Amino acid sequence: MSGSMDAGDGAAEDSVPQQPRQPPEAVATGTSRRGLLRGALLGGVGGLVVGGAGGAVAGRTLISEDSTDAVNLGTKYPFYGQRYQVGIATEPQRHCLFATFRLAPGATTRDLQVLLARWSAAIAVLQDGRSVGSVEPTSPLQPPRDTGEAHDLSPASLTVTLGLGPSVFGERFGLARFKPALFSDLPPLNGDFLDPKFTGGDLSLQACADDPQVSYHAFRNLARIGRGVVVPYWTVLGFGRASAGEGQATPRMLLGFKDGTRNIKTDDQMAQFVWIDKSDQPWLDGGSYQVVRKIRMLLETWDADRIGDQQEIFGRDKAEGAPLTGTKEFDHPDFAARDAEGELIINPLAHIALSAPENNGGVMIKRRSYNYTDGLAADGQLDAGLLFISYQNDPQHFIRLQNRLGANDLLNEYIRHIGSGIFVVPPAPEEGHYIGEALFA
Amino acid sequence: MSGSMDAGDGAAEDSVPQQPRQPPEAVATGTSRRGLLRGALLGGVGGLVVGGAGGAVAGRTLISEDSTDAVNLGTKYPFYGQRYQVGIATEPQRHCLFATFRLAPGATTRDLQVLLARWSAAIAVLQDGRSVGSVEPTSPLQPPRDTGEAHDLSPASLTVTLGLGPSVFGERFGLARFKPALFSDLPPLNGDFLDPKFTGGDLSLQACADDPQVSYHAFRNLARIGRGVVVPYWTVLGFGRASAGEGQATPRMLLGFKDGTRNIKTDDQMAQFVWIDKSDQPWLDGGSYQVVRKIRMLLETWDADRIGDQQEIFGRDKAEGAPLTGTKEFDHPDFAARDAEGELIINPLAHIALSAPENNGGVMIKRRSYNYTDGLAADGQLDAGLLFISYQNDPQHFIRLQNRLGANDLLNEYIRHIGSGIFVVPPAPEEGHYIGEALFA
Repeated sequence: MSGSMDAGDGAAEDSVPQQPRQPPEAVATGTSRRGLLRGALLGGVGGLVVGGAGGAVAGRTLISEDSTDAVNLGTKYPFYGQRYQVGIATEPQRHCLFATFRLAPGATTRDLQVLLARWSAAIAVLQDGRSVGSVEPTSPLQPPRDTGEAHDLSPASLTVTLGLGPSVFGERFGLARFKPALFSDLPPLNGDFLDPKFTGGDLSLQACADDPQVSYHAFRNLARIGRGVVVPYWTVLGFGRASAGEGQATPRMLLGFKDGTRNIKTDDQMAQFVWIDKSDQPWLDGGSYQVVRKIRMLLETWDADRIGDQQEIFGRDKAEGAPLTGTKEFDHPDFAARDAEGELIINPLAHIALSAPENNGGVMIKRRSYNYTDGLAADGQLDAGLLFISYQNDPQHFIRLQNRLGANDLLNEYIRHIGSGIFVVPPAPEEGHYIGEALFA
Repeated sequence: MSGSMDAGDGAAEDSVPQQPRQPPEAVATGTSRRGLLRGALLGGVGGLVVGGAGGAVAGRTLISEDSTDAVNLGTKYPFYGQRYQVGIATEPQRHCLFATFRLAPGATTRDLQVLLARWSAAIAVLQDGRSVGSVEPTSPLQPPRDTGEAHDLSPASLTVTLGLGPSVFGERFGLARFKPALFSDLPPLNGDFLDPKFTGGDLSLQACADDPQVSYHAFRNLARIGRGVVVPYWTVLGFGRASAGEGQATPRMLLGFKDGTRNIKTDDQMAQFVWIDKSDQPWLDGGSYQVVRKIRMLLETWDADRIGDQQEIFGRDKAEGAPLTGTKEFDHPDFAARDAEGELIINPLAHIALSAPENNGGVMIKRRSYNYTDGLAADGQLDAGLLFISYQNDPQHFIRLQNRLGANDLLNEYIRHIGSGIFVVPPAPEEGHYIGEALFA
């Protein structure tokens, strides 16, 4: 039985029953992966049994009642009166519904304008934790305005971020004069394995929240408002990205490694690399370019790879996330360090080497990625991976990085870039205005 | 623009910009759908701006810092030493990875036995919030035992429930003598629209947790442990089911109606309708029959239906969830009540009428359903619906209900049963034992 939990440690493969060995890191953190890093334990492990309907039957045991590892669904973000759209610098929520739309063949410039105005008004209401209209109209002859599945739900930190694709700035809508010089479709990139089903779109919508039902509700109701003008094109529901904010662990991708240790975290970095400022298109100042890639991961193959190889591919150790030249996650990698045999400790083709700012003229991108699963592939393998989303003030920053990674990254054996899109995210509107209004002045 | 948020209320369809009307129920609950139902507000709406990396930029506004609408990820459930498997009576978690597996053609009875033993040992460790083996083995030549993506995550209320399909009790494994008389494949049922891709399986795995990454990690590592013996067959990742426990609102399905108002909630009902007791197979006492149905919902069609029709179909009002003969969610429906014209107020073909215990010889089933989305269908429509899971001590209870609903339910115009499976869930093991051990005595 290859790849089993006891493979290679000499335990009898078929002894029945057996307990898995407790690994060293589980001992080090007590009986919970995370519990002892946190606040006071109440009642100790297994000491507090809570009753309630079915509780006595199910045997509910709390580690800690005041755990700080809780998700507060009461948080909400404002929509109006900010410089930047939310969902870019915002602390990452735990779920994301990313969708692209195509404009209907008959849609006019006026339709696009009205859509952006109506979407903006609806997003303001949704982020405030309200419905976009009555769930239960007084007249029995009216359909509900809001589809209702989030009627009792808290705001859950919802942010909806709207983007416009390059096609919006073609001749069709008379908007070519607003197109920034830097903005066009992504060129073919090294490592592309793109499926047209997950590639492109005229508009993008990123609905992130700490409750996936809130994200899905936002997408569904915005799609409904747009009916006749836009058609949903492709969507991904991403999950599992614990916040990387203060006091939180860096989230892990499905390859099991931490993702985001060296991500952009300061306002200074945001100003330098993410927010568009003083561009050839003043209406875009305060905006950003959004790149999305659907990256399938070949999990079964990866899971069979040995740890030494996995760590060489990333250039980090797996559990702690430290660079192979250090001992702690946030130690700075030393790409010049050599071992006793004179070999570079971090392989120059390791993922962190190829993508490091110091090896790319100082360039950084703001990543905001989520894990996803589409169930099983036709071949019975796990169909899952990373919904990669990045923000940058110059699309060339992403293009340069991905061309380098796509050509040489040791990781390429285990990933496939199957979806792609690029959009420009306008700045946030003032109260009484809407996203992209400057295009229709 | 049909179905838009302003359709039918006389607002100019193309006035730019416009704000959606604030519906009466939004006014009634203040500026949040849920906030004023909860604890003390700190700082009032919009009154508290929190800083931090990117915070000043993003404008983070908290409604309430001590909101009780929070998900505590520190909770964990025991595996050993209980009568019943967890994940049945357990308060529903917010996410669920449901998977079925097929036994490999060459798998022997001994392979099945070892698999159940190894899975049991691993589930005990996973529910305790630990890894199933080292994430980072000492030898660089070993693959990691645990895939690692949950390495830093809390237990998140994980419960893994294992089921055995009817095929396990065929002649192949010599286990026919353990097959209970009540247990066989589901017969063709009224309303079946089954896709073989989502139907059947030899074993089932229900991994529910308050963090989908914890659910997915459990499934993935158990699938890996089983490699060579079982092959994953179909999976659904369900979401969005807020707890229906004390003080919590009944969750809503994607049709926007509450789901579970009359669900089984007491230990007495569990004993009467869910737990197998004194059956012809004593090894199964403390078990239950698990039925799963993947039910696609035709959301666009539903969303265009008028509220009067939607409410007639369910027999309840949409916002509150009260039966049409009452005013509050938990009012008992009066199926004999007539209006001034002498018509039955609740249509006898309404969903709640056809499924009510009093109209089915008193029978109840324990439902444990989740919403799901598979993105977009080939026709561009939303591909989403309900992962219906029910538990009962007699499969005929489900068969009878579904045959009745499938033949006559007014809801059938808007739903399709596209996936199906039935499994028997053995009782929980004592420490040092494993699920299904009695089969191999």
